[in-house]
Amino acid sequence: MQNAATPPLERRNMDSMAVVPGTGKLGIMMPGMGSVATTFIAGVEAVRRGMAKPVGSVSQMDTLELPDGTTPPVRDAVPLAALDDLVFTGWDIFGGNLYEAARTAHVLERDQLDAIRPFLEGIEPLPAAFDQRYVKRLEPRHHKQGRNKCDLANQLRNDIAEFKARTDRQVMIWTGSTEIYLTEKPVHQSLTAFEKGLVNDDEDIAPSMLYAWACLKEGIPFINGAPNLSCDIPALHELSKQTGAPIAGKDFKTGQTLIKTVLAPALKARCLGLHGWYSTNILGNRDGEVLDDPDNFKTKEESKLSVLESILRPEESPDLYRDFYHKVRINYYPPRGDNKEGWDNIDLFGWLGYPMQLKVDFLCRDSILAAPLALDLCLFMDLAARTPSLKHTGVQEWLSFYFKAPDTVIVGAPAEHDLFRQAEVLKGTLRRIAAEA
Amino acid sequence: MQNAATPPLERRNMDSMAVVPGTGKLGIMMPGMGSVATTFIAGVEAVRRGMAKPVGSVSQMDTLELPDGTTPPVRDAVPLAALDDLVFTGWDIFGGNLYEAARTAHVLERDQLDAIRPFLEGIEPLPAAFDQRYVKRLEPRHHKQGRNKCDLANQLRNDIAEFKARTDRQVMIWTGSTEIYLTEKPVHQSLTAFEKGLVNDDEDIAPSMLYAWACLKEGIPFINGAPNLSCDIPALHELSKQTGAPIAGKDFKTGQTLIKTVLAPALKARCLGLHGWYSTNILGNRDGEVLDDPDNFKTKEESKLSVLESILRPEESPDLYRDFYHKVRINYYPPRGDNKEGWDNIDLFGWLGYPMQLKVDFLCRDSILAAPLALDLCLFMDLAARTPSLKHTGVQEWLSFYFKAPDTVIVGAPAEHDLFRQAEVLKGTLRRIAAEA
Amino acid sequence: MQNAATPPLERRNMDSMAVVPGTGKLGIMMPGMGSVATTFIAGVEAVRRGMAKPVGSVSQMDTLELPDGTTPPVRDAVPLAALDDLVFTGWDIFGGNLYEAARTAHVLERDQLDAIRPFLEGIEPLPAAFDQRYVKRLEPRHHKQGRNKCDLANQLRNDIAEFKARTDRQVMIWTGSTEIYLTEKPVHQSLTAFEKGLVNDDEDIAPSMLYAWACLKEGIPFINGAPNLSCDIPALHELSKQTGAPIAGKDFKTGQTLIKTVLAPALKARCLGLHGWYSTNILGNRDGEVLDDPDNFKTKEESKLSVLESILRPEESPDLYRDFYHKVRINYYPPRGDNKEGWDNIDLFGWLGYPMQLKVDFLCRDSILAAPLALDLCLFMDLAARTPSLKHTGVQEWLSFYFKAPDTVIVGAPAEHDLFRQAEVLKGTLRRIAAEA
Amino acid sequence: MQNAATPPLERRNMDSMAVVPGTGKLGIMMPGMGSVATTFIAGVEAVRRGMAKPVGSVSQMDTLELPDGTTPPVRDAVPLAALDDLVFTGWDIFGGNLYEAARTAHVLERDQLDAIRPFLEGIEPLPAAFDQRYVKRLEPRHHKQGRNKCDLANQLRNDIAEFKARTDRQVMIWTGSTEIYLTEKPVHQSLTAFEKGLVNDDEDIAPSMLYAWACLKEGIPFINGAPNLSCDIPALHELSKQTGAPIAGKDFKTGQTLIKTVLAPALKARCLGLHGWYSTNILGNRDGEVLDDPDNFKTKEESKLSVLESILRPEESPDLYRDFYHKVRINYYPPRGDNKEGWDNIDLFGWLGYPMQLKVDFLCRDSILAAPLALDLCLFMDLAARTPSLKHTGVQEWLSFYFKAPDTVIVGAPAEHDLFRQAEVLKGTLRRIAAEA
Repeated sequence: MQNAATPPLERRNMDSMAVVPGTGKLGIMMPGMGSVATTFIAGVEAVRRGMAKPVGSVSQMDTLELPDGTTPPVRDAVPLAALDDLVFTGWDIFGGNLYEAARTAHVLERDQLDAIRPFLEGIEPLPAAFDQRYVKRLEPRHHKQGRNKCDLANQLRNDIAEFKARTDRQVMIWTGSTEIYLTEKPVHQSLTAFEKGLVNDDEDIAPSMLYAWACLKEGIPFINGAPNLSCDIPALHELSKQTGAPIAGKDFKTGQTLIKTVLAPALKARCLGLHGWYSTNILGNRDGEVLDDPDNFKTKEESKLSVLESILRPEESPDLYRDFYHKVRINYYPPRGDNKEGWDNIDLFGWLGYPMQLKVDFLCRDSILAAPLALDLCLFMDLAARTPSLKHTGVQEWLSFYFKAPDTVIVGAPAEHDLFRQAEVLKGTLRRIAAEA
Repeated sequence: MQNAATPPLERRNMDSMAVVPGTGKLGIMMPGMGSVATTFIAGVEAVRRGMAKPVGSVSQMDTLELPDGTTPPVRDAVPLAALDDLVFTGWDIFGGNLYEAARTAHVLERDQLDAIRPFLEGIEPLPAAFDQRYVKRLEPRHHKQGRNKCDLANQLRNDIAEFKARTDRQVMIWTGSTEIYLTEKPVHQSLTAFEKGLVNDDEDIAPSMLYAWACLKEGIPFINGAPNLSCDIPALHELSKQTGAPIAGKDFKTGQTLIKTVLAPALKARCLGLHGWYSTNILGNRDGEVLDDPDNFKTKEESKLSVLESILRPEESPDLYRDFYHKVRINYYPPRGDNKEGWDNIDLFGWLGYPMQLKVDFLCRDSILAAPLALDLCLFMDLAARTPSLKHTGVQEWLSFYFKAPDTVIVGAPAEHDLFRQAEVLKGTLRRIAAEA
Repeated sequence: MQNAATPPLERRNMDSMAVVPGTGKLGIMMPGMGSVATTFIAGVEAVRRGMAKPVGSVSQMDTLELPDGTTPPVRDAVPLAALDDLVFTGWDIFGGNLYEAARTAHVLERDQLDAIRPFLEGIEPLPAAFDQRYVKRLEPRHHKQGRNKCDLANQLRNDIAEFKARTDRQVMIWTGSTEIYLTEKPVHQSLTAFEKGLVNDDEDIAPSMLYAWACLKEGIPFINGAPNLSCDIPALHELSKQTGAPIAGKDFKTGQTLIKTVLAPALKARCLGLHGWYSTNILGNRDGEVLDDPDNFKTKEESKLSVLESILRPEESPDLYRDFYHKVRINYYPPRGDNKEGWDNIDLFGWLGYPMQLKVDFLCRDSILAAPLALDLCLFMDLAARTPSLKHTGVQEWLSFYFKAPDTVIVGAPAEHDLFRQAEVLKGTLRRIAAEA
Repeated sequence: MQNAATPPLERRNMDSMAVVPGTGKLGIMMPGMGSVATTFIAGVEAVRRGMAKPVGSVSQMDTLELPDGTTPPVRDAVPLAALDDLVFTGWDIFGGNLYEAARTAHVLERDQLDAIRPFLEGIEPLPAAFDQRYVKRLEPRHHKQGRNKCDLANQLRNDIAEFKARTDRQVMIWTGSTEIYLTEKPVHQSLTAFEKGLVNDDEDIAPSMLYAWACLKEGIPFINGAPNLSCDIPALHELSKQTGAPIAGKDFKTGQTLIKTVLAPALKARCLGLHGWYSTNILGNRDGEVLDDPDNFKTKEESKLSVLESILRPEESPDLYRDFYHKVRINYYPPRGDNKEGWDNIDLFGWLGYPMQLKVDFLCRDSILAAPLALDLCLFMDLAARTPSLKHTGVQEWLSFYFKAPDTVIVGAPAEHDLFRQAEVLKGTLRRIAAEA
């Protein structure tokens, strides 16, 4: 697995990992306050009250083995914001408060939501910057009007400025829907071109880019939990470095792809060959509804397809991985709600080419898997923003552990998809920070 | 995943990794010439003739990334015996030649066997040292008679001596059945006690121990592909060091446990909790028949149960892994023959404790998965026997990648089960050897 | 499917199907008030209050197609007791009221139970007639003491007599645990021998037989929801006919066997051959715990194994069904609670013998599937008790639709297991009753 | 299940079931000689030589229970053509002989094909009447040229006439690909309109209709194994009655739908509710390739979707079956070849609405399941053609047992989909014929 020739990601940067201390409140801003956002926020509150555990969160549940032989909790080893210091806001197209949104989402049990109802009712999403051409299946009820995209983006900056007044540090995490498939165009190539495009209402600037731009302009880290292009364009990489606001993305690695990036390295490690991999998903939440549109599905599909080639490297092992057939399907299936199911069939072959089959059925929960990733990412991105040697790279590639299609420092460069190599890079970076602390 | 505090296994030994060159024929001796042995031997011959690829073999199909940036095939990077130099013999209780044995095994297709029929017919197993009390379901037809266990063991030494005359170097690999469950007794504690026990027909000395003793006595590496105690007792560790014959075991990690040691590290990496893991197996080959006896099953069960605790370490993460329920069942089911099926149900939990399920159905082939492991182990153990700094440790812990219940240098010490950490140790060791070559 | 030569069961009896009207309260007595009983009783109350639907109940949810072209609900077509007229009592070894028992069972949601809490709290099981030798894994806390089995049985008769004073008609349905495996012995052969055995504390008289005897002695129908022998012995058949109290059993056909008796007829209809059928079950409720003991499991296993031979009739189609291998496993697996899972692997073969596989994974709920069967059986047995031409046969074979191992009028005669033929017989009988009504 | 009010299909016709004896050769003509046709033909020859059994064929493997208490084999109870009297021909777009076609199909093992190679080489498909607009993914290599559709159809009549000279009786069975989705148009409404459309090259006349027309015009029974409209239009019903040539269709009920029509009746019988049913298929044969085109998939989808509504009748049981969500997907997945896999997830609910899941994975073989259906249909349609009281109805609804979307005597009338009710009708009809024989 390990490549002794090329130094692992965590060692590329030999700068000091000194961290600027963070005090006071960390404000978390979420464009899109549906299933993931409400599950994340309600969960943080439940954990703060001792009602539940933040299972799935490395920052809260894991330990870090240090050179001195100790293994403190991650949250003690590196200077992360405390859960008690988190404050939440966001934008949504459906209005209502977060208690209502959480009830609609049907993820957490009613009893649990009722126990923290006043807290949830106290959070009301702001009207969103939205454009139905990018998310065809959703009908907005609560959104901003603006002369053009630039105007809308500046309205977002105003919202951010107000939130800044209430909090000490901020991060923004996109927890909204998947937008239609976009590819890089000239308008994405430089900040100048992009900002001109904002004024000209360029159709290649999707709403998620407005949020990313406003956020980075304000010097705030931006995280992209969906497969949208969003901040993964040269223009916003440029802005990220300019304002020292780190970025990370894209697309939370939750169910089927999580398993895929675990099993594929195992096939590779054992030199077992692959004829085909068929993946189907059924889910019935808003995400499923959005992805039922082919243009939006294409964005997700692209995000999901690249992982196998990247891990198996057919060019290096043609006898094992040449011409395998990889197909990914997502089907909107309302009976399931947020409880999605991913079914994988893997046609592998062994000794002398004899065929075998491996089938995986993951009855998972979309938002339950995503919420702890959102928490970790907010805390680690706040940490990155306080770590000069990290934030100057813009993209935080050391957080690729959390993403289906990790953004890379060089736009479009090959990313690491192997979950275990990603975990090593994450832990290695944290260990270096801890060493300086 | 990575533990920076304790040095990885591959770095424990800082001695030179210089290898003594090996020339001539490498003789491979197999107690038990059933499905695995015939699939291994027939496969090697098919590969030699260019009829098939040795899929699943790291030594033949994988590359090694070297510090100089090159990635040669493993077999070129370290001085392994060539497939053309392998010569085979063994012992079996059913008589007949290997063509007949391979036809009975029903693993490889008839066409394939017919193409190499004369080669297979040229190998006839020697009569085995066997005792039905240790493998209750099998009725021997072709076995040695002896005054006592010592006499039987010395008959084996004679067989070995004859084979030595035909070959330049040798390894022995146990590909026989699983014996009944035995635990360490006084007779196993020292070589003196053991050799006295041989003469006294001590019932705690199983046939597989006779082979291991004879083999090590002759200074030949011994590999244990079954979950039997065999060489994993202080007496034989002592002998291994005395004669400089390395040992490795135990129980080829093929189907369900292979997947388990891949998925459990993934749960651990993502801090997902575990309520229970239920594993059932159906298989219909001779192995399945043997394991249908409770005493023999117990040996296998013990081998399979330990992996989860070792990987998940409940003592470190009680909120996630305390009290998970782990059950393993193996059922003899003749309709399947060698094509076993492992079905796993995993009850995990995520954010706030919400339950999810992961189900894995592995329609695999026992001997197809085992054969390449046997090949790699023979080649790597021959390499170890020629590497002074490796062989002096006795147990070759760096080969734990291949075993369900890896033997450790200290009898009974905790073993590494995580497939990816095991792979790192394997590759790291090979890289160090390659660096000296 | 249809056998024109032998008249279907429903036509064997050409007597009039006139029904004696039933008025007033129907009292339901349940030995064993655990998951099934509480789910049944709480469910009936929830349905009475309009909070839920009695899904799974033919008597409440199905219609009956009549010769006049109408299709009234079953409950209107034949004179069944109304849900509002049901009154419940029972015996249990754990004490407490039914609200507590239902909470312990963890089947129904807390909200639902809380809504009918006073009703459930109003029902307190009587102390049970219990003997741990027959159900090894359970430790009783609330049970009768008696000089001998006869004394215990008469204490039950006293309990019944008191309940009779509060209700107009009664049925008893065994919803207790599976007892250890018993076979027919001389003591079971006649009522005289049996009643002598009660006095002599014959060890072949299990507690469930005490209930059946007491019940039938009081002229009350007895239903057996577990695989115990219970009333399925000549002695109690004799008593049933003597007192005109119909009997029916045994073992509710709920999860895996339900599916098996659906798929096996399909293979048979299509002349697809069978090599093997492997069934494993995981469940974590009290039933699972009881069945974890081999003696108790054997009772269940026998009940489950017979169905395939009966449906496929290998003697008639040896080319298709000779020598198929059928294995059934039940594993106690606490993480699941009452939500059991049955996994079936079916090795079938088609045209020219080519093999195929069918795998079924049923994530079901034991008590949710059993409760509506209990309801139907109580109502239909009360109907049978009021239908002279039905009750005189003793065993109500027309109710075999509900049982894994249907009792037959002649003890040990082959039973019908095909779900669809069973359904025809059930509907046919109801139709004949409806025709007279 | 049984509807006493409406007489079962088999009793609708009270005419005599006297059969005209058949002697000599039965010629079988197959448009489309790919996987199904070669598997069928090679299998019949293998059976004739005693090399294998015709598993899956009711006519060859099943018995018929007669009123006199005997249960002779079906093939003895009714006067069917003997396998020895079958003669085969057909049309295909790929040329070559049937040995080559069978090798390409990769269904039967090479050994088996080699044993009957001369027989298979002796059958060469005639050039097909083909039009790529109706089957977009296939590129023809061996097809007829004609002035218009009428000319092509008459070329087929010439082919048929030549075959008539070699055989005594004939049937035609469509074993070609699925055509694009067509709906009934004016040109299909009468024979006059249709025959005018042939001359005018009406685009609503698909190639399969040319075969059906030519076949019926020649007074020969026509069977439709694909979901195409083909003979299921008023024009061809009219022709069928005019020439006394019976018709039957459509779409062989093989894998997933077979199971669906078995499980849905079970849910219905037990009054278990349904929230959703998601079905996905992966297959890699030519059929899979053809269905990868959306227009062709639509034809198949329509054929597959109707079965649930028909069996569950939501209008009668809205509390159980209102608004269930049914989705069917077919994915072309080349690694599987003819070995398709159907994965079903069924979201059902029971008592009080509690949800459960049933998952079915059918690793089946398309042509292995289809071949015995083709055999039965040829024999039974030849029988129908010799039974005056059957053939005068045109459509042979009593054969709906074999079809995914059974044609009905009245075009578009609701069909019976329940496999067991279909089996009853089939057996009932055979029994009536047997009674007269």
